[in-house]
Amino acid sequence: MTGQPVLALDLGATRLRAGVVRADGRVVARSAGDTPGERGPAAVLDAAIRHLRTVRDAVDGATRSSLGGLGISAVGPLDPRSGRLVEPPNIGPGFEDMALAAPLADALGLPAVLERDTVVAALAEGAFGAARGARDFIYITVSTGIGGAIVAAGRILGGADGVAGEIGHQPVSLDGPPCGCGAPGHLEAFSSGAGIARRARAAVAAGDAPLLAARAARLAPAALQAADVAATADAGDPIAARLMEEGRTAFAHAVVGLVNVLNPELVVVGGGLARAEGERLLGTARRAVEELAFTIPRRRVRIVEASLGDDVGLAGAQPLLAERLFAAGIR
Amino acid sequence: MTGQPVLALDLGATRLRAGVVRADGRVVARSAGDTPGERGPAAVLDAAIRHLRTVRDAVDGATRSSLGGLGISAVGPLDPRSGRLVEPPNIGPGFEDMALAAPLADALGLPAVLERDTVVAALAEGAFGAARGARDFIYITVSTGIGGAIVAAGRILGGADGVAGEIGHQPVSLDGPPCGCGAPGHLEAFSSGAGIARRARAAVAAGDAPLLAARAARLAPAALQAADVAATADAGDPIAARLMEEGRTAFAHAVVGLVNVLNPELVVVGGGLARAEGERLLGTARRAVEELAFTIPRRRVRIVEASLGDDVGLAGAQPLLAERLFAAGIR
Repeated sequence: MTGQPVLALDLGATRLRAGVVRADGRVVARSAGDTPGERGPAAVLDAAIRHLRTVRDAVDGATRSSLGGLGISAVGPLDPRSGRLVEPPNIGPGFEDMALAAPLADALGLPAVLERDTVVAALAEGAFGAARGARDFIYITVSTGIGGAIVAAGRILGGADGVAGEIGHQPVSLDGPPCGCGAPGHLEAFSSGAGIARRARAAVAAGDAPLLAARAARLAPAALQAADVAATADAGDPIAARLMEEGRTAFAHAVVGLVNVLNPELVVVGGGLARAEGERLLGTARRAVEELAFTIPRRRVRIVEASLGDDVGLAGAQPLLAERLFAAGIR
Repeated sequence: MTGQPVLALDLGATRLRAGVVRADGRVVARSAGDTPGERGPAAVLDAAIRHLRTVRDAVDGATRSSLGGLGISAVGPLDPRSGRLVEPPNIGPGFEDMALAAPLADALGLPAVLERDTVVAALAEGAFGAARGARDFIYITVSTGIGGAIVAAGRILGGADGVAGEIGHQPVSLDGPPCGCGAPGHLEAFSSGAGIARRARAAVAAGDAPLLAARAARLAPAALQAADVAATADAGDPIAARLMEEGRTAFAHAVVGLVNVLNPELVVVGGGLARAEGERLLGTARRAVEELAFTIPRRRVRIVEASLGDDVGLAGAQPLLAERLFAAGIR
């Protein structure tokens, strides 16, 4: 890490958090609010600056004067090299090609580094969480979407443009359901919250999922969510149960492929749907790897839950700045 | 590169080649023969040493005394860190956990480094071939099997045990045909020569591929190969044509996933089946990436043929020794 405290911003689609983070990853001041995405980029920038100034002013003078930089975690896609959002679909319109790192650096008078939320989470888990000490690991978030990041030989695998790690957007089926990205049969279409909900709505529309339909009838038509599918599966609906089970199987097969292709020490799984599913998701993946992966990578890999909670996007500012600003590696 | 000439060994399942390779990748002496796998590990070691001594003795004294090391390319799986073959299925029985680098180093009096053939090919293409100048690329070989290697930030992505890159063993289907490795629906089961032949034999056995059956009837029962399937497809058999087309589609979808996950500058495709298929395989992949991959990695990536021929396993000894022995990077 940097040794110094840093400012951190976690810009999510619905919530915006700011914090001061010590070198050990502890958040010592925080301020949060809703992301005013519907009011446009300028309102989001203003809110970010306000929360960042609030936390900066909340710490003592010695801490304030030793702040080493600003680390920003944001929803993708984004360009970490130019510090700009590219076309984040979940914040609101008007955020295409929006400069984020530079105006925040100017407003706070600190060097600023921007990265995708999944990359920051991977760095945080590597520095302070479930992947501490690991040099080769994969972080996967299973939530509304499926994203991730790859750490290879102790460094984020960025690829040619710094946007590698879109683990949800690999095929698990040649003619499967369409993914939000437009491609058929991607992991995210089977195993993400949005994918499960989309498949469930299609089953309701096709008239072959009566229990799901009954639940959907109590909601607004498009409001059927993965949590409803999971609850309906637990209540005994075979269609809902099959959708949940196919989501687990697709995830498990994708993890087998990642283990064969990347030979990681760890697969760290975070995200709301992964938390809700627990062992049903991780156990399915562990059994598939045990049965199907190649001998050497299978013996090595462990599949574990992410260990950092809501502070992950703030804590990751420390290793992010260490890697990008001070080139000190992630440990 | 090392600046010095090096000795090189390319240990294939059927052929064994030795060479002296100059710093620019040119092979200036060579000796080759069949791999005597059926006579066991000692016979293979003896043959390797004989061919290596032949090429060493064929060069002038100045070259001989300046040899910088021995680079060994061999069929996997193998352990590059211990320099041992693990359980190569294609050479013959008795090769499990066979020390290769150490006895060859002793016999030749040179430091020796062992790597998987696909990794050596990737290093060679990066140093002298289609990927020259690229820092982030994927090498894929489409042949009897499908293998590969990943270069990230100018270095081979080895993973925790140095065995990463098994690109053929990722899912493209949740319930597809079984792969040689035992898992269902892997890329290799759809798109490799062995996979296509296996599916064709199953179609013949099921009685629903009359033209394929007629061709198979002129061969030994298990001798139907991917080349036969390709020829039968060209002759108008719809079953054979479907198998070839599904192989191309599965490959294309897998490449889309690799582009999204790894954001490479280049995907370099080698191997005998890829050469035979040509634009039918690569064009299908290019069109799929153009239509389906994420914007930023899609704009970046180019999908190209491997440019080095049969010498790739020898030429790669130069960057292999540079990376592993002299830690000088691959360029």
